[in-house]
Amino acid sequence: MSATTVKVYRDLLEVNGEWAAETRRLTAASRVTMVNLIGAPGCGKTRLLESLVGELGRRFRFSVLEGDPETTRDAERLQRLGVPVVQLITSGGCHLDAQLVHAAMKEQPLDRLDIVIVENVGNLMCPACFDIGEDAKVALLSVTEGEDKPLKYPLLFQEAKAVVITKVDLLPHLEFDMARGLEFIRRVNGRIPVFQLSARSGTGLAAWMQWLADTVATKKRGE
Amino acid sequence: MSATTVKVYRDLLEVNGEWAAETRRLTAASRVTMVNLIGAPGCGKTRLLESLVGELGRRFRFSVLEGDPETTRDAERLQRLGVPVVQLITSGGCHLDAQLVHAAMKEQPLDRLDIVIVENVGNLMCPACFDIGEDAKVALLSVTEGEDKPLKYPLLFQEAKAVVITKVDLLPHLEFDMARGLEFIRRVNGRIPVFQLSARSGTGLAAWMQWLADTVATKKRGE
Repeated sequence: MSATTVKVYRDLLEVNGEWAAETRRLTAASRVTMVNLIGAPGCGKTRLLESLVGELGRRFRFSVLEGDPETTRDAERLQRLGVPVVQLITSGGCHLDAQLVHAAMKEQPLDRLDIVIVENVGNLMCPACFDIGEDAKVALLSVTEGEDKPLKYPLLFQEAKAVVITKVDLLPHLEFDMARGLEFIRRVNGRIPVFQLSARSGTGLAAWMQWLADTVATKKRGE
Repeated sequence: MSATTVKVYRDLLEVNGEWAAETRRLTAASRVTMVNLIGAPGCGKTRLLESLVGELGRRFRFSVLEGDPETTRDAERLQRLGVPVVQLITSGGCHLDAQLVHAAMKEQPLDRLDIVIVENVGNLMCPACFDIGEDAKVALLSVTEGEDKPLKYPLLFQEAKAVVITKVDLLPHLEFDMARGLEFIRRVNGRIPVFQLSARSGTGLAAWMQWLADTVATKKRGE
């Protein structure tokens, strides 16, 4: 990149950071947790939310912000299940920026919520660069993508507070080596909790739900 | 995006377009075909090339440019198979830009090549915006990603000259509906050829190789 390009990106990130800070002030005041789900297209972000709707509703007062470059498909999938959901369309943009998210967060009934789950645009790279004011980024990695993605896209795995490995029900049909995948995650981020789950079979969902519950409880205590 | 941001992106694209035109002049002079493979992380771009090395070598004088945000892993995979390959590292950048690609193309022995295959960074969005001087973008879509990706990431499917649907050997284990997937591709780009293949089983590779051969032949004729 040229010096000009670098400067422009720096300016963009600075403005973005200001909006993220605004959102963080909102959620600090109402002690609402905000989680930012990031992963490649088709890694199973919406499917994971679909499979958790019942359990999320039993444990939390929650809402979802759905990021998408063009369509309202994912929001409609969740709306059919009765989830309070807002669609954020980036019009071809490759990530959610903090200003767009802030506009949506301001409209959320934060005093009556425990957690807002944001599903970012399907992309392992750009969303990792853009703080949206969340309490935790969660990196999703499907076993169909191969073990080496944390090495190739390290920023997300460094920034995230948890990794969710999805679609483990497909392992018998793939050459994915879980020990190797876990080693590559550890190499990029030695202490990050990793959850292996399948939205289809239900395996591993409870452990990740517990992590979400702990994250919500920490925020409630104002930590 | 703000007006400033839009302007900056326009400038970036303009400079990028100039480098792409330079590359196009090079390949027009030597009648070398340049194909730009674009798809999500883990959709099977490198694996497809691995499975085709023998056949590519029998049909063409070829080389590969491997895009990656951070690592040389994919280039090493291909080098082990004897492929002439150059690694292009974007240092976290989310797409290959035309200037970086041009620097590599200038060093290629174009008079002794029929085709240069470029594997872009794993990303369904940003690489579609950046012309690198290629003759054809090819969109890769893995059946593990679900049918709706062409609707959600339409630009790539509009820009591409062919779609390759990968990993069809996994269809029996997935809920992917091929008729629906094909309909969504057609909705975005009505005339694009679509190839369904599996690098693992070998199904469908011959048809895509034939498309590549036809593309090379067209360029040789100077069309």
